[in-house]
Amino acid sequence: MTMLDETHDPALRSWVESANDAGTDFPIQNLPFGRFRRAGSGEDFRVGVAIGDQVLDLRAAGLLDDADLKPLMASGPARRRDLRARLSAALREGSAQRDALAKCLVPQAQAEMAVPCTIGDYTDFYTGIHHATAVGKLFRPDNPLLPNYEWVPIGYHGRSSSIVPSGTPVRRPRGQTQPPGAAQPVFGPCQRLDYEVELGFFIGTGNAMGQPVSIDDAEEHLFGVTLFNDWSARDIQAWEYQPLGPFLSKNFGSTISPWVVTLEALAPFRAPLKRPAGHPDPLPHLDSKATRESGSLDIRLETWIQTEAMRKAGQPAVRLATSNAADAAFWTPAQLVAHHTCGGCNLQPGDLFGSGTLSGPSQEQSGSLLELTKGGKEKVKLPNGEERSFLQDGDALELRGVCERPRARRIGFGACAGMIVG
Amino acid sequence: MTMLDETHDPALRSWVESANDAGTDFPIQNLPFGRFRRAGSGEDFRVGVAIGDQVLDLRAAGLLDDADLKPLMASGPARRRDLRARLSAALREGSAQRDALAKCLVPQAQAEMAVPCTIGDYTDFYTGIHHATAVGKLFRPDNPLLPNYEWVPIGYHGRSSSIVPSGTPVRRPRGQTQPPGAAQPVFGPCQRLDYEVELGFFIGTGNAMGQPVSIDDAEEHLFGVTLFNDWSARDIQAWEYQPLGPFLSKNFGSTISPWVVTLEALAPFRAPLKRPAGHPDPLPHLDSKATRESGSLDIRLETWIQTEAMRKAGQPAVRLATSNAADAAFWTPAQLVAHHTCGGCNLQPGDLFGSGTLSGPSQEQSGSLLELTKGGKEKVKLPNGEERSFLQDGDALELRGVCERPRARRIGFGACAGMIVG
Repeated sequence: MTMLDETHDPALRSWVESANDAGTDFPIQNLPFGRFRRAGSGEDFRVGVAIGDQVLDLRAAGLLDDADLKPLMASGPARRRDLRARLSAALREGSAQRDALAKCLVPQAQAEMAVPCTIGDYTDFYTGIHHATAVGKLFRPDNPLLPNYEWVPIGYHGRSSSIVPSGTPVRRPRGQTQPPGAAQPVFGPCQRLDYEVELGFFIGTGNAMGQPVSIDDAEEHLFGVTLFNDWSARDIQAWEYQPLGPFLSKNFGSTISPWVVTLEALAPFRAPLKRPAGHPDPLPHLDSKATRESGSLDIRLETWIQTEAMRKAGQPAVRLATSNAADAAFWTPAQLVAHHTCGGCNLQPGDLFGSGTLSGPSQEQSGSLLELTKGGKEKVKLPNGEERSFLQDGDALELRGVCERPRARRIGFGACAGMIVG
Repeated sequence: MTMLDETHDPALRSWVESANDAGTDFPIQNLPFGRFRRAGSGEDFRVGVAIGDQVLDLRAAGLLDDADLKPLMASGPARRRDLRARLSAALREGSAQRDALAKCLVPQAQAEMAVPCTIGDYTDFYTGIHHATAVGKLFRPDNPLLPNYEWVPIGYHGRSSSIVPSGTPVRRPRGQTQPPGAAQPVFGPCQRLDYEVELGFFIGTGNAMGQPVSIDDAEEHLFGVTLFNDWSARDIQAWEYQPLGPFLSKNFGSTISPWVVTLEALAPFRAPLKRPAGHPDPLPHLDSKATRESGSLDIRLETWIQTEAMRKAGQPAVRLATSNAADAAFWTPAQLVAHHTCGGCNLQPGDLFGSGTLSGPSQEQSGSLLELTKGGKEKVKLPNGEERSFLQDGDALELRGVCERPRARRIGFGACAGMIVG
């Protein structure tokens, strides 16, 4: 567990003035890492740190020469913590490095972001128990949660090639579906296109094949956290997913927020594992006092939508739902690492875990349209009179994540945005 | 479809004498690519071609400088065909390059092989209809094949980090299982460890996200074929796999044969798509005359076992089963490419597809112990008196693959071997 230190002091201010704005996602207490270049420049991507509305170019600053976050991920938590401490000191009001570093700032508005690193393997979990229950109810009203759910952190391998950074349009997939009552399936555009509100957990140091990571060591293998939208084609999924799980319904595109908020930045926002009553304790290899008491993350998650009609009318995005990761997740990130490796599977730096859809216990805290609309049956009404059961072409979705607590500086994740195109 | 040319002439002989042996897997008509270095040398891995019992070092020969097969995979079929033609000419009896190239040979017995390239995404399909039927019967005697099977090339994303080259020991996984009648699951070593006989298909050129590959273009995106053993923990699988598919039961290790046999080498061994009677034609985006008439591969697959007791007694491996890919597969590799990309998923050079277990229609053609033993109920008897329902520690499995037809030179795949360690 990462300790609080002077980098978390809520009174710290930066000489980058925009980092001191109350509403910024990126005050000096955050310092998330990402991969950027100046838009339209044709430059190589390199690693930067978000500070206020700026990016500090770590290559120009002589602090990190890599083209990708992977070497920093691989080099372990001590180096990451050391870099955080140095950045915090250098970006602080009164720092002697101000003049030198001011030349290494690029406005975020002028930056093109990439995925933080080449993602090797991506695993999507299913830790949102309220999501799993709500979706299960649609298929099995009397038995929504399968018996393994409370014992096994259910997860499945996903597609890494189609994970794209925030802002990349996502094309509505075509695929095979079986319309109710039809004699045979048809091939055509997805009719039940949905989003899923998730967190993304990046692996830092890996483990050798055959050598599990214990629950006590698991957090040392985590690098940081992003927002993640696991776009889902529900009609394709319903037809294809038995017996081996979702496939084309999930691999046409997934959107990730480009700034990786480190475990250190999240230290003031840890929460106990909150499980609904009536579930057994995990088996010992997935259990520890630390993970039970502070293994979860207190992150408020919001989903915003702006339809094409709203955009044309100059109307801003509206919020569809809000939930909190700590209320939603039945398993902690450390439990996911311990589970993933318990059979010997090797994790590698830059691997990504999706949390699964993080819906809260009530319907307005849903992390997907499938839940908000009860399987498409109850349409969501938007302020301009439009209705949605599933996503239409031109709909732009944006996930936001915020950590706010008394006596801590508010930090955020930046945007995880994407628009559906036909 | 690759045409036959002079590189396939069964009368061709090489100046590498071992390539002219009747029983070699690697005559001059094969020329598979792999990644090697001299064992114990600490050298960098580089690309080689198998010829008889030798490896031709393409870097030393000045033919290819890459450390990995990926650049050759990415550069498309024309360059691969050109390289094949040049290698065929250079290794032929009477070639003027003999003296220069003889210095670039390394005996395979002295070579350490790696996986052919860094594998980005790995997808495992389920094309073996007899396997799917036999396994389905164990769970659903009256309804073994689900309705989607005859319409959708069922597949799921797999784990690429734990794919290891032939010869790497595989550790028996520990995991969660639910013993029959037990009040709660237990964590411990897998009790039902199995193998699966598959082919591996490497992707050559990729496609952009959102741009499907048509069935007619699909084979141009395939690079070549390997053997693949998808080790499976059946007890872990049974407990974890609902609702999102197999996960830890499959990701503790998968073994690949290190030599990639190109589509060109397989040109004399194409076969029609042989589907059991009573199934509908595929939907148009998965159908073509070419794939129906010659989309399958006539590859004989064999599974051999040598237990620890056999090894200690100096007894050779014995054959457990034989099948043929062309009798087993309900979908062609081209159909898998067209399906995988039809929703917009982007494939990348070096991605790997597993075929799924390629069992023939009769039980002695089973590609797994699950089938050979009818779910573990009928033990397999070995010649030394030992019996197996599932694999024990010290069991060494070897898959072999051979293409043999009249008027064609026999070619093979080399070994896909691994031993279970406790």
